[in-house]
Amino acid sequence: MPHIQLPEGFPGISGPLEAYPETALHLRELADALLRGPSSLTPAEREVIATAVSAGNECRFCTRSHAAVARHHLGEGAGLVDAILAGDSLFPVSPKLTALLAIADKVRLDGRLVLPEDIARVRASGADDRAIHDTVLIAAAFSMYNRYVEGLATEAPDDGALYDQMGTRLAEYGYRR
Amino acid sequence: MPHIQLPEGFPGISGPLEAYPETALHLRELADALLRGPSSLTPAEREVIATAVSAGNECRFCTRSHAAVARHHLGEGAGLVDAILAGDSLFPVSPKLTALLAIADKVRLDGRLVLPEDIARVRASGADDRAIHDTVLIAAAFSMYNRYVEGLATEAPDDGALYDQMGTRLAEYGYRR
Repeated sequence: MPHIQLPEGFPGISGPLEAYPETALHLRELADALLRGPSSLTPAEREVIATAVSAGNECRFCTRSHAAVARHHLGEGAGLVDAILAGDSLFPVSPKLTALLAIADKVRLDGRLVLPEDIARVRASGADDRAIHDTVLIAAAFSMYNRYVEGLATEAPDDGALYDQMGTRLAEYGYRR
Repeated sequence: MPHIQLPEGFPGISGPLEAYPETALHLRELADALLRGPSSLTPAEREVIATAVSAGNECRFCTRSHAAVARHHLGEGAGLVDAILAGDSLFPVSPKLTALLAIADKVRLDGRLVLPEDIARVRASGADDRAIHDTVLIAAAFSMYNRYVEGLATEAPDDGALYDQMGTRLAEYGYRR
């Protein structure tokens, strides 16, 4: 049961977003700008980073919903999401995405863990300043969204079809109202 | 030295906010809504929570700037900020703020740590749903801002006067552009 009164039928983050519209507006706009706005990373790459951070933080609702968005963007390449969630080290992940995910995981734990050698590795893989910036901010922002969802003890439904539908809708129409 | 190219003369979070305006807009608006918008908590209480979370995360720039904003709001009661930063258990802090700070510190570490008894304690002190919501979201949001500042290795100047000026400006005019 959530720690505060939230509207029925709005699972995960959608409950507090419905109930507290003044902050919801900016939380939605931020997600849209970060995950779908201008970037040198594809929306699929950004959703994979958001999914991996949410999985690291063990936020079930965020992990399942962003995994669904990422799968929608990736189409036939959707196996990447499941391989990353399963920690399958044999699945071929590009050097760039591998290096970005390593930075995201450090930011998730503590921003100060990111070292010049992590940045050098990601640059050597072809990532630019924008990709580094966006990766750090996605990892930081999901450190927020995950805590918002879990800190209020919101409900995470178990129904996989719900996440698939949500993933399709978010991938096609975005995070804005 | 920051991990990416940032404009000179913009310390801490202001560097990436200057350089990446699409996300900066929403990061600024969110801070303004959270710390100055409608709430059952005073701006001073909210800034104290933001300061305590930033101190827990050891983000020097965020701690010093929000401590300065909180001191400005508190006026003659500004000793509260220094007592909290120093961990002075003899300083009289209201039962409500004590209970809210305990929730904020749990959210900072992991949202799942917040237990029904933490919520019961904060309600017994007079806090309502809105206060609980805002405390969880402030702690979550500063888990983001702190990681953004530290994950990019932005510069935190040592000059106390700079933070005092920033605190006065932010307390009086807010976080929007």
